[in-house]
Amino acid sequence: MKFSSKVEKSGLSPMRKFHPFAVAAEAKGRKIYHLNIGQPDIETPPQYFEAVRNFQLPVLEYAPSPGMPVLIDAIQKYYDNLNMHFEKDEILITTGGSEALAIVLQSILDDGDEILIPEPFYPNYSTMVNTTGGVIRPIPTTPEEGYHYADRAKVEALINEHTRASMCTNPGNPTGVVLTPEEQRLMCDIAKEHDLFIIGDEAYREFVYAGEPLQSFGEYTDAAENVIVIDTVSKRFSACGARVGAILSRNHELMGHVMKYCQARLSVATLDQVASAALYDVGPEYFAAVREEYKKRRDTVVSKLKNIPGVVCSEPKGAFYLMAALPVDDADKFQQWLLEEFEDNGDTVMFAPGEPFYATPGRGKNEIRIAYVLKQADLERAMDLLALGIKAYNAR
Amino acid sequence: MKFSSKVEKSGLSPMRKFHPFAVAAEAKGRKIYHLNIGQPDIETPPQYFEAVRNFQLPVLEYAPSPGMPVLIDAIQKYYDNLNMHFEKDEILITTGGSEALAIVLQSILDDGDEILIPEPFYPNYSTMVNTTGGVIRPIPTTPEEGYHYADRAKVEALINEHTRASMCTNPGNPTGVVLTPEEQRLMCDIAKEHDLFIIGDEAYREFVYAGEPLQSFGEYTDAAENVIVIDTVSKRFSACGARVGAILSRNHELMGHVMKYCQARLSVATLDQVASAALYDVGPEYFAAVREEYKKRRDTVVSKLKNIPGVVCSEPKGAFYLMAALPVDDADKFQQWLLEEFEDNGDTVMFAPGEPFYATPGRGKNEIRIAYVLKQADLERAMDLLALGIKAYNAR
Repeated sequence: MKFSSKVEKSGLSPMRKFHPFAVAAEAKGRKIYHLNIGQPDIETPPQYFEAVRNFQLPVLEYAPSPGMPVLIDAIQKYYDNLNMHFEKDEILITTGGSEALAIVLQSILDDGDEILIPEPFYPNYSTMVNTTGGVIRPIPTTPEEGYHYADRAKVEALINEHTRASMCTNPGNPTGVVLTPEEQRLMCDIAKEHDLFIIGDEAYREFVYAGEPLQSFGEYTDAAENVIVIDTVSKRFSACGARVGAILSRNHELMGHVMKYCQARLSVATLDQVASAALYDVGPEYFAAVREEYKKRRDTVVSKLKNIPGVVCSEPKGAFYLMAALPVDDADKFQQWLLEEFEDNGDTVMFAPGEPFYATPGRGKNEIRIAYVLKQADLERAMDLLALGIKAYNAR
Repeated sequence: MKFSSKVEKSGLSPMRKFHPFAVAAEAKGRKIYHLNIGQPDIETPPQYFEAVRNFQLPVLEYAPSPGMPVLIDAIQKYYDNLNMHFEKDEILITTGGSEALAIVLQSILDDGDEILIPEPFYPNYSTMVNTTGGVIRPIPTTPEEGYHYADRAKVEALINEHTRASMCTNPGNPTGVVLTPEEQRLMCDIAKEHDLFIIGDEAYREFVYAGEPLQSFGEYTDAAENVIVIDTVSKRFSACGARVGAILSRNHELMGHVMKYCQARLSVATLDQVASAALYDVGPEYFAAVREEYKKRRDTVVSKLKNIPGVVCSEPKGAFYLMAALPVDDADKFQQWLLEEFEDNGDTVMFAPGEPFYATPGRGKNEIRIAYVLKQADLERAMDLLALGIKAYNAR
């Protein structure tokens, strides 16, 4: 049987290959500390489950294709509070940020079209872009420069007649880079000057640690035709399993095309929309507490990493990830060895090897992504295991 | 800004254009009887809401990308009870039957590839196929022949080197056609002989009214490489808003490609999967009661239609739709007139005009799709309004 050439070009999740080794390690009684996935352990606010329990309609009907008014209202109000106004028809609810990204990319990319994405980047972007027929043109960055990418010369050198868009994951996954207002302004200016869409994937907006105000490409109303904001309740409210996200854009032609996809898939889950709307009732103390917790975890990870000889990393300013270059030959082999050969008091550790975060062949080979989503004590233990592992691996 | 050529080729929902007229009619105090949408009024089994209320985990986490084991188990058992066995890795959970269809079509169709679909067909197939770059090759049917399509000569005449698959919506939306076992066998044989996928969109499996056993293309294990079953809880359990569906196939290469999409979009909503698994606990008395109710509605609609002079329709054998040819010049104009000009004691009626159900230009112009999803008394009133409307429209 013949399959789509686009899906043939895509791969399964590169993280998946370690799953059997993890299962085998656990079967041997090993305890694995997971720094490899971005599943927060923070409790989902009780408002979600209360709304779900209070749902009283006898028939679980389709929601409207653009989203339920109660949720669109809540999101509109949330942005108004951040001094960004979107009209209701400039907000379309999606099944998570993932569907938001997939629909936007399908709407703007054709075979051979290019999208600029700073690398390292979230590996699912590869499948999402490949299946449109488009191509990722990576904006290269380096650990030594703190993965900084918003540089006019660097970005403009990569723009050609096939370029349609640029993607800014801000705050960044996997790097934790947070754009300054000047850098956001620059990325918008480049998009405007070259007639490109600029996609702000802002899933981690609340997770910034330097006291800066929450930011969004949605602020740049002069780039109304260019800016597309990808949003989600997943990380904001530790509600990844709700699968509720949104596309926000003031480009009405784009939103008309996006609506075609929204209508073809009928609707987003009804109960999850009602419950997600209730999440927007949580007060600022919720975010303050969560931010404080992640900031502590970041500080722990960074200080532990700085004490491991040969590790290169920079302090992430946002999100809950960081990339680090390790003094090992190959992070993939090192991860497999940690699962198959290593243990300290029966414990070992998993992270995400760096190569899948890069489009440029050969890059990221000695890098890893750490998700600092564990409680303080577990995180400390995990980082100690990493240090012990590096030492033992290089002493073989 | 430039958009994807594939999304440019797609259209917004053709039903949408009547929305402003319906709003205006309601603003004038009209009551509209809705025969235009497939949203059942049957209550969702309480098991769904009980499961949701009993959910106790503090963090609403991502579910596994292939689906939650509890739901995969429930679906496997459901098929085992129908004497069809699927292994667990032959079942992938999706966000409704809609995502199941979209992922399957994206996985098997390339630019210029063709898929055979009997027309009239579910209009969202158009967007789903267009956005792959593929083309629908309609298998023509007629109201006079009861929309019958499973005919070797008719089907084979349409197969060429671009043909990759055929789609059988069984029981049929919008026609209510139910394939006989011989017809299913024939469609499988054709798929095998011509190396095509055969997609069974079986959302309405439980809704058959002649006492026949529930059927599925999943029974044809000799066509394991060809058959793809699209399933959903939406209609089976009147849980359209759950957005929980599944792809079932014994073609492991296909399922590997499908998994790439499943991983890229991370997961299906967690709570809806838990609750959907609980739905599979309902007993046969639930389906017997629902089936009896829809059968009565079908009988009401058909007998009412037969008494309207000039209407051509055949008795649907399944699902809860029927197509009917009306003695009017143009079903679109008639619908608009019903909303703008007509009323009987303040009431009017909406159905779905037929053209969007056809790929062949000009076909379906005097046809409508009726969704018999209203309670008995409302349905009778709606059909009387249709009869009065036709008479008044043609007497203008």
